[in-house]
Amino acid sequence: MPRQDRAPDALRAVTLEPDVARHAEGSCLIKFGDTHVLCTASIEERVPPFLRNSGKGWVTAEYGMLPRSTHTRSAREAARGKQSGRTQEIQRLVGRSLRAVTDLPGLGERQIVVDCDVLQADGGTRTASITGAYVALHRALARLVAAGELPRVPLLEPVAAVSCGLVEDQCLLDLDYAEDSSAQADANFVLTASGKVVEMQVTAEDVPLAPAVIDALMSLAVRGTRELAKLQVQAIGQTV
Amino acid sequence: MPRQDRAPDALRAVTLEPDVARHAEGSCLIKFGDTHVLCTASIEERVPPFLRNSGKGWVTAEYGMLPRSTHTRSAREAARGKQSGRTQEIQRLVGRSLRAVTDLPGLGERQIVVDCDVLQADGGTRTASITGAYVALHRALARLVAAGELPRVPLLEPVAAVSCGLVEDQCLLDLDYAEDSSAQADANFVLTASGKVVEMQVTAEDVPLAPAVIDALMSLAVRGTRELAKLQVQAIGQTV
Amino acid sequence: MPRQDRAPDALRAVTLEPDVARHAEGSCLIKFGDTHVLCTASIEERVPPFLRNSGKGWVTAEYGMLPRSTHTRSAREAARGKQSGRTQEIQRLVGRSLRAVTDLPGLGERQIVVDCDVLQADGGTRTASITGAYVALHRALARLVAAGELPRVPLLEPVAAVSCGLVEDQCLLDLDYAEDSSAQADANFVLTASGKVVEMQVTAEDVPLAPAVIDALMSLAVRGTRELAKLQVQAIGQTV
Amino acid sequence: MPRQDRAPDALRAVTLEPDVARHAEGSCLIKFGDTHVLCTASIEERVPPFLRNSGKGWVTAEYGMLPRSTHTRSAREAARGKQSGRTQEIQRLVGRSLRAVTDLPGLGERQIVVDCDVLQADGGTRTASITGAYVALHRALARLVAAGELPRVPLLEPVAAVSCGLVEDQCLLDLDYAEDSSAQADANFVLTASGKVVEMQVTAEDVPLAPAVIDALMSLAVRGTRELAKLQVQAIGQTV
Amino acid sequence: MPRQDRAPDALRAVTLEPDVARHAEGSCLIKFGDTHVLCTASIEERVPPFLRNSGKGWVTAEYGMLPRSTHTRSAREAARGKQSGRTQEIQRLVGRSLRAVTDLPGLGERQIVVDCDVLQADGGTRTASITGAYVALHRALARLVAAGELPRVPLLEPVAAVSCGLVEDQCLLDLDYAEDSSAQADANFVLTASGKVVEMQVTAEDVPLAPAVIDALMSLAVRGTRELAKLQVQAIGQTV
Amino acid sequence: MPRQDRAPDALRAVTLEPDVARHAEGSCLIKFGDTHVLCTASIEERVPPFLRNSGKGWVTAEYGMLPRSTHTRSAREAARGKQSGRTQEIQRLVGRSLRAVTDLPGLGERQIVVDCDVLQADGGTRTASITGAYVALHRALARLVAAGELPRVPLLEPVAAVSCGLVEDQCLLDLDYAEDSSAQADANFVLTASGKVVEMQVTAEDVPLAPAVIDALMSLAVRGTRELAKLQVQAIGQTV
Repeated sequence: MPRQDRAPDALRAVTLEPDVARHAEGSCLIKFGDTHVLCTASIEERVPPFLRNSGKGWVTAEYGMLPRSTHTRSAREAARGKQSGRTQEIQRLVGRSLRAVTDLPGLGERQIVVDCDVLQADGGTRTASITGAYVALHRALARLVAAGELPRVPLLEPVAAVSCGLVEDQCLLDLDYAEDSSAQADANFVLTASGKVVEMQVTAEDVPLAPAVIDALMSLAVRGTRELAKLQVQAIGQTV
Repeated sequence: MPRQDRAPDALRAVTLEPDVARHAEGSCLIKFGDTHVLCTASIEERVPPFLRNSGKGWVTAEYGMLPRSTHTRSAREAARGKQSGRTQEIQRLVGRSLRAVTDLPGLGERQIVVDCDVLQADGGTRTASITGAYVALHRALARLVAAGELPRVPLLEPVAAVSCGLVEDQCLLDLDYAEDSSAQADANFVLTASGKVVEMQVTAEDVPLAPAVIDALMSLAVRGTRELAKLQVQAIGQTV
Repeated sequence: MPRQDRAPDALRAVTLEPDVARHAEGSCLIKFGDTHVLCTASIEERVPPFLRNSGKGWVTAEYGMLPRSTHTRSAREAARGKQSGRTQEIQRLVGRSLRAVTDLPGLGERQIVVDCDVLQADGGTRTASITGAYVALHRALARLVAAGELPRVPLLEPVAAVSCGLVEDQCLLDLDYAEDSSAQADANFVLTASGKVVEMQVTAEDVPLAPAVIDALMSLAVRGTRELAKLQVQAIGQTV
Repeated sequence: MPRQDRAPDALRAVTLEPDVARHAEGSCLIKFGDTHVLCTASIEERVPPFLRNSGKGWVTAEYGMLPRSTHTRSAREAARGKQSGRTQEIQRLVGRSLRAVTDLPGLGERQIVVDCDVLQADGGTRTASITGAYVALHRALARLVAAGELPRVPLLEPVAAVSCGLVEDQCLLDLDYAEDSSAQADANFVLTASGKVVEMQVTAEDVPLAPAVIDALMSLAVRGTRELAKLQVQAIGQTV
Repeated sequence: MPRQDRAPDALRAVTLEPDVARHAEGSCLIKFGDTHVLCTASIEERVPPFLRNSGKGWVTAEYGMLPRSTHTRSAREAARGKQSGRTQEIQRLVGRSLRAVTDLPGLGERQIVVDCDVLQADGGTRTASITGAYVALHRALARLVAAGELPRVPLLEPVAAVSCGLVEDQCLLDLDYAEDSSAQADANFVLTASGKVVEMQVTAEDVPLAPAVIDALMSLAVRGTRELAKLQVQAIGQTV
Repeated sequence: MPRQDRAPDALRAVTLEPDVARHAEGSCLIKFGDTHVLCTASIEERVPPFLRNSGKGWVTAEYGMLPRSTHTRSAREAARGKQSGRTQEIQRLVGRSLRAVTDLPGLGERQIVVDCDVLQADGGTRTASITGAYVALHRALARLVAAGELPRVPLLEPVAAVSCGLVEDQCLLDLDYAEDSSAQADANFVLTASGKVVEMQVTAEDVPLAPAVIDALMSLAVRGTRELAKLQVQAIGQTV
């Protein structure tokens, strides 16, 4: 059945709630419809070994899902004793996406660890994570500015992410779980507010894709991330 | 500095919000002041090997803390590749506490897995977990009753838990993190609504305790858990 | 069948044999009936990171069971690649119990590691471990005194542990395996020679307990640990 | 320094040597310049649990690098006790790429495991792995056909992969290690012989990319994979 | 300093004490001087997968050292999460040695697991383990005979092991720890009572050895194991 | 069936190809018939902790098999998360064998890590590894000499290894997989070019061995390793 509750090029209802966590230096609870991710940013006054004495900082990310965030319960990764390949793939993606818009020398020799924990999942957890992580990161950096530790927030521009896909031969923006499960192709785009590409991953689930489909998905993504970037800016603005 | 914002024998503000999770069969978000735990109960139509063909069910629990639920960030257990001794101790305690009030033959040959995930920590995460887990468990079982799978909810009576401690030679109910950190003794009580003891753990942090202190802590616990049991019943009642 | 070979408030035959291990700085082979635990104390001239340059020492413990110490063979934890939750719970308990009677600043910046290895198990392995560990620890510290490294043994008073339980509605001291397996409630008490409480853990196995039962179990424990403390003092005395 | 030994749109010298492994049902040693990968395909007469009794087969892949395939020695993953996130990302990519061109029902209920082991690395190990893996897979399937187990090779069309990147503002095909290390953007394309997209991953290493760059990289990739597909067909043809 | 307390071709004081463990089907506490190993044999009514429905049995072994069996404390393998290469080498050796003298079809489809746990170490723990393990294994099998489960003990002849070494250019039998630490060569021989070779491992620690040295070590080993076999037979005989 | 393609005392066709790996400081691809092992030697300017400031160097080895180097695919050790006991046994043997002919003080405070990776297996992988590893090690050390870092290659004499075995009551040199699988006894000898013993391991697979068999196997090994040592010298000579 084709999508009925919103237009093919529409996002789900998106909300960003900054400063929800009492202890973290920065935080944001982001909701893409029924997908809810708690993002926290923690400041550490040390950097990984390869950056010591470089004057540059680092941003890294970790990702997890609560065992019953999903339709059926998934085994707890801490109990199984290792993170899945999927988890590692996603946290590497989130980290790279944030670093692409961070002025690392401007951050100084410190590290920000962003944790993205999925409280409830309904498709698009990695794109919601990136979008919320940006806000959490900004809040933590703003705290450093407020404390006089940094002259300005060392972020170049907002970064946001959204999924697109081909479902029943129709290109759709921001897939939910049901759509994602039946998609012929699944793509994740990480774009800046100005429409530049940070990361782009396209996977044909079923049959290989004509290049024209890629272009169509990209157009949807540009539209979707522009809207998300506005919401990010609003959310950060309202905290002042 | 002695406790100022509430009486020595008062709980923090406690709220229980059932049915917060979209996918879990039962759930409850419980808050003991700034300690927030998301409890979900998942029904599985199988039991551990030692119960196969016994006609009896099982209730088990897992526990986790989000990395930045704490004052400073803790390493993610999934990334370290194992659960700490503390985590295992707590999840074993939660499981035993729930089983003590469950009619396991009445549950039939199925297992309920209760996940307690700490979103924000300010002391008392294990006692909040047990108290919230009971509500999540009840909600999952009520669903089985509603579906005609069980004739009645196989729970004997509510079970709730609270910490008590000796701080600056004063017995206090429901310690927050700051109190817990400076406590001379720390105790956790798991009691039923009728005041019976399910689990009791007392630890002298500093100097060994006179037996009279144990009695005083127990009195506080009886009072605290009676109040918590009322809130559990209310929370469950309002879902009907 | 009720206990027949000894009174409800009697310990099993207890022996403590200090200095049994050739290499360890302190050691004690303790027997609670058919439960035999080899305790060794090893002195290390370094402390955990959080105590460096604090002037304070540390006491920690590890626990293990030989695979065929039990009625049926248990998997070797080293082969399974991890210690069970039960093992970690016990070794944390032993460590806390010993630290509660140790003058850590008086120990100076060194660590004592106490290993409790169960050679044969028949119930009460954790309480035998604590009781024997105290003697091993004392012997290691006495050696430091003899070598002029410490002015006196930095122990405040003896600490001993015993289990109690409710079996067929009767309160019993020092349960063996058969009694423990059929107990309605199981409690472990760690008390000092002067009757103060260091740790106390009560678990209702079957049905929750009336508070009066707790008092009865506590009385038994006070009696049992007083007797154990005498045996500890004797065992240490005979080594001089 | 810009690329000097070949045109910006030229592949490195590529060779594919099928049937190099004595024991594997299918194999191919592929070289992209100084990057050498040994690909073997092993037939297993069983499928993962989720496919049992489905009538469908499965293709999966594993990836590894010899410790000294790299410029400086890397720790052996078997000794470290886990596969890195990068390794898992790559082996998941190889598996998805092969499945996208495999007629899984036509394979029948059996599994092909393709191992890609990097003997020597100089950039592009994942793209060489996919390209060589296709040939190894084809050889294993042809053996099933020869044995009368399958009526035809259940592969839809060849699949090949190549990297492209932006280096000193120039778009280059098939980056070697030195180019990859200094690239502003790095992309991996998995395309079919007919130019359809199976997987596409673009990562901006330094600054976000204008969409036009993506198009330019895609054009290079189409050209490169078309050439690789010819070499695959040749390599398979010469084995007959 | 050359060996002074015994002749170069003399064993240390050896004692074998069978049936020391209450729960194990067979057991033996063996002492080679200050090296003490507790060997237990456990009967399991199942075999490894590769022997199912073969009518044959299996004998396997595990080995461990208590953390403070050694001169300085060694890390507990269960805590480190894996067995060392040395441990695995030894337990594989013990298992092979026992299987070489066991009539596996005569054992029937069951498995004997022999655990060798070093309570105190002073060199030669692997040879003491093998020698004691034979007695523990015999005791467990004799119990099966006594129970009418087997017509006779399915062991072909006794197997014993001893170390030899070249120390200060002198060949010595049964090295203790001090001798072993300064040995130029170290050899372990596993021989049957009739003088046949089951396993033989020679390692030149310092400089490679002339073949004549091997012969000299072998002669010592034949003499030593003949004596050990007598003690094994005696120990088993006295249990009747 | 007895061996038909070569004499009982003949090696398989042996080739040693030095300098095959582009990045490693030393390397050798060795073939013993269908057994192919890639050996690389990596120089590290640091030593294990126990040698720091000793002025002495270290040589260590790691060993692995590609998953489909074997007749049927073996699980990848990196994926299983640990190295097998067999792998650890072999890599310890290779390391000891190389150290026995290395002048460790002459090496200076650096470490050489030799990796032996089996590309294809047909029996004798550990003996081929040792034989090839010597050449790789020599090549790496010669590079240090050429760079003026060392005055001479700090190797005392060549070391080589070969297997021998008793098959159908006949002593054979250099067993292939089929012979090894049906051997009554299996022995591995590591000898120097001058015929001295570095390591010797004999295992009776089936029935214990008469001492005369050991002598016969040793004679074969002396002959075989003398021939291998010539090939090693030739291979190293041709690189000059």
